[in-house]
Amino acid sequence: MFKFEDNKMYRMPPFFGGHEYNPDFDAHVNDVMTMAFTYETDKNKLSGYLPEGFELLRPELNVAYCQMREVSFMAGGGYNLVNISAPVRFNGKRDRLEGQFSLVVWENNTQPIIGGREETGVPKIFADIQDLHIFPPKYFTNASYEGNTFLRLEMVEVQPIEGQPLENVKAASLIMNNLNFRFIPKVGCPGVELGQPVLYPQGTIVKSAWIGKGTVEWIKLRPEQNPSQFHIIDALADLPIIKMAQAMMIKGEIIMKPFAGRVLE
Amino acid sequence: MFKFEDNKMYRMPPFFGGHEYNPDFDAHVNDVMTMAFTYETDKNKLSGYLPEGFELLRPELNVAYCQMREVSFMAGGGYNLVNISAPVRFNGKRDRLEGQFSLVVWENNTQPIIGGREETGVPKIFADIQDLHIFPPKYFTNASYEGNTFLRLEMVEVQPIEGQPLENVKAASLIMNNLNFRFIPKVGCPGVELGQPVLYPQGTIVKSAWIGKGTVEWIKLRPEQNPSQFHIIDALADLPIIKMAQAMMIKGEIIMKPFAGRVLE
Amino acid sequence: MFKFEDNKMYRMPPFFGGHEYNPDFDAHVNDVMTMAFTYETDKNKLSGYLPEGFELLRPELNVAYCQMREVSFMAGGGYNLVNISAPVRFNGKRDRLEGQFSLVVWENNTQPIIGGREETGVPKIFADIQDLHIFPPKYFTNASYEGNTFLRLEMVEVQPIEGQPLENVKAASLIMNNLNFRFIPKVGCPGVELGQPVLYPQGTIVKSAWIGKGTVEWIKLRPEQNPSQFHIIDALADLPIIKMAQAMMIKGEIIMKPFAGRVLE
Amino acid sequence: MFKFEDNKMYRMPPFFGGHEYNPDFDAHVNDVMTMAFTYETDKNKLSGYLPEGFELLRPELNVAYCQMREVSFMAGGGYNLVNISAPVRFNGKRDRLEGQFSLVVWENNTQPIIGGREETGVPKIFADIQDLHIFPPKYFTNASYEGNTFLRLEMVEVQPIEGQPLENVKAASLIMNNLNFRFIPKVGCPGVELGQPVLYPQGTIVKSAWIGKGTVEWIKLRPEQNPSQFHIIDALADLPIIKMAQAMMIKGEIIMKPFAGRVLE
Repeated sequence: MFKFEDNKMYRMPPFFGGHEYNPDFDAHVNDVMTMAFTYETDKNKLSGYLPEGFELLRPELNVAYCQMREVSFMAGGGYNLVNISAPVRFNGKRDRLEGQFSLVVWENNTQPIIGGREETGVPKIFADIQDLHIFPPKYFTNASYEGNTFLRLEMVEVQPIEGQPLENVKAASLIMNNLNFRFIPKVGCPGVELGQPVLYPQGTIVKSAWIGKGTVEWIKLRPEQNPSQFHIIDALADLPIIKMAQAMMIKGEIIMKPFAGRVLE
Repeated sequence: MFKFEDNKMYRMPPFFGGHEYNPDFDAHVNDVMTMAFTYETDKNKLSGYLPEGFELLRPELNVAYCQMREVSFMAGGGYNLVNISAPVRFNGKRDRLEGQFSLVVWENNTQPIIGGREETGVPKIFADIQDLHIFPPKYFTNASYEGNTFLRLEMVEVQPIEGQPLENVKAASLIMNNLNFRFIPKVGCPGVELGQPVLYPQGTIVKSAWIGKGTVEWIKLRPEQNPSQFHIIDALADLPIIKMAQAMMIKGEIIMKPFAGRVLE
Repeated sequence: MFKFEDNKMYRMPPFFGGHEYNPDFDAHVNDVMTMAFTYETDKNKLSGYLPEGFELLRPELNVAYCQMREVSFMAGGGYNLVNISAPVRFNGKRDRLEGQFSLVVWENNTQPIIGGREETGVPKIFADIQDLHIFPPKYFTNASYEGNTFLRLEMVEVQPIEGQPLENVKAASLIMNNLNFRFIPKVGCPGVELGQPVLYPQGTIVKSAWIGKGTVEWIKLRPEQNPSQFHIIDALADLPIIKMAQAMMIKGEIIMKPFAGRVLE
Repeated sequence: MFKFEDNKMYRMPPFFGGHEYNPDFDAHVNDVMTMAFTYETDKNKLSGYLPEGFELLRPELNVAYCQMREVSFMAGGGYNLVNISAPVRFNGKRDRLEGQFSLVVWENNTQPIIGGREETGVPKIFADIQDLHIFPPKYFTNASYEGNTFLRLEMVEVQPIEGQPLENVKAASLIMNNLNFRFIPKVGCPGVELGQPVLYPQGTIVKSAWIGKGTVEWIKLRPEQNPSQFHIIDALADLPIIKMAQAMMIKGEIIMKPFAGRVLE
């Protein structure tokens, strides 16, 4: 008979064994290219998507594309993601902290999707996400589902950040509170089996950075073109782009500390 | 602020809305080709993978490949899967029933993987799974991960089943108790946040069926070739094929009733 | 030293051997679903794309999607294609015949692309082409390149064709003159090394057929979104859809006779 | 009517226009990671694959994996390839030069496959080729076809090359004569329509280089697992690995000059 062993971490299917628990475990991404876009949007609409306990700090949407390479838990392989988040404060009975709340994360690989969802509540779903096309003066990529383009990201007028501004970017990127809401439904009926605010500490070691002019283009899809996601794309496309900030591109490393994660109260 | 509405079903991310709950909801697969292999194996080894409450009925491993097409929740699209299961009896305090317990299910599409894992505890993980190659006298497919073949399935000497034997297959396929164990870990430390035996009722409407000689070939991978699954493949490859039964191919429809699913006690 | 053997057929690389030539060789597609759209367009524009010797019979563009399965030369595997063609008469010194001239064919598999281009001059290029989504009342698919949708095809109001009309469709589909222009450039400089009108005889054995209301939607791409094909998509998108005929869906078999092909004069 | 314009380069389909001919045109790959393996093999067997005019310089097979990124003709996108070549001298009536003769090249993208085959006779065919997995101390990748692994490449004990040895690698990589044999068959019958020795000048700008211990593992496939390529894999797997030289990894840029290519005589 299969039994869970103490001090081991498991995933479905757990029956074939788990991994020794190491509280200091880091997941490393030794080579990441990030293209990050930030825009002012409608405060009421955006607030309407935050669950209880999370307060919007600024009416601001972040769209971050990451090309992850040399990923430790993939034996040096890679994947791409697009993280849609907003700056929030968590006001709990015990915990009170600021961070980036992930509204949805598209990834092009199932393995990190499963782990992120079930272990730390990151709302990851699948999309085809192109590698970064580096074609100066254009840097661009897109996300699609079954051949249906729904997001285009582009940077132009790209200039390196150097000196003190680069040091500032480095310092600001070292520690990031990734905040999520882990939801697991009841079986066979409506209702919340698990509904937990979760902190997932991460950080980026910035090696190079650039600023530029960014463009974020959402393309709505019909329900049959993306049955399980069209309503998410609709909602994001309906958040107005009131003011686009400068886009930033970063080359560096990412360190993720899933076992330093915890349920917030 | 986002709030869950009563009588709606949600998935991560829930923030953008849910679906009306309909207890009679069916997921339909209007066109499925199944190639099913059964073999006698070592009783002790196989029993060792079953969690508490599940008792092995026969020392028998089932390897079922399904080519799913015209899938209702994918707007008529499709995917492929390989389900590894064993015949069991669930002996609970309240519930006592027989069915097929899924040890692991490989699928080549993230959407049903996520839903199956979180909503009904089906231990689905990703693999590239080829469409069925129909090349008489051979019918074959394979499963691989990042280009590494780990499973080959083949049928030869294929003969149609007709008359009363076909009627028997039809009757036996109409209702199937798919049994699973939904496991969700604690955040940031070892331990079981959710560990639930789950019943997921399904059925197949058989239209045509064939028997033949089947071959199941497991190919072990090195850890770096499939970091999160190699131990599963190792375990399955180490289950001896003591006696191969006749393989069966089925063309028909599948009806899945996720909302008739329930946690067993 | 490698030498070509008489009576063998070769492909690049030829060095590892060829296949015995069999003039009666057929390539079989034992399971094909075709969705065919026809529309009246601008005669002058369309004529402008035909090379010397080919005369437009009607100002009509045909857009045929084929989901090819159980393909003999792929050991029972499959692929999808979209064939853009026009009805023409070839007026040669020796040959005079009517058929469908392929302006471009998108396929989602390299193997038939290479063979078709080099052996019979079919102007095949790559795209991601979705399997047919059968989601009554909608039947649809799309073609994209690196995540950029450029063509959507859809049928609704689908009705079976039966009786004598079905017999007519069957008879009309049995033999089709696929006409192409094989072009191979000079090495390292402009100029035509090979420029040959080619006949490639094919036929479809129709088993079932349906008519319906069809929609063809072209979506132009920017050059960087599809560097080698955007000008083709532009040209096709600029051919006006003056009048859409009824779309037709066909289930059946395809027989291709590449070795009955010949250079036209 | 479509007509070829002077001083323009075309590809199938040519009907929608060509590109201005620029004799100085370079195709740039601004970011390439190469992992190159060389081994001594059987001289007679290897010579047996070379067409007339090409003489083997050493009984040596080269297996070069290239991860091509920031590719100019793909608008900054990328692809992977595995080039199997041997060192040769071309002894023509007019031309006499040394270079690397490509026996077969696998690539995971159709666009460069088509161009390379038809324009310069590079014998490119399709395979799924994984990105380089950088997982110190292991660097590895594989090639597969429809889920069937047929080639594994790995480097370990990787050490940087520095100082004068690095300068030597840089100097030796700047100019490379890629030699090919462009073959186009007759239509509909055996025979050689075009059979041309071709020079395709290329070069690599080496930025960093490493040596290490390399492993090349060929895995034979059954005909139905790879109908159009199994005989190529068989032939290569049957070339004995008599002595493995040190493997080399290179990071740099590639410059390809297709229009400096020419037919050799």
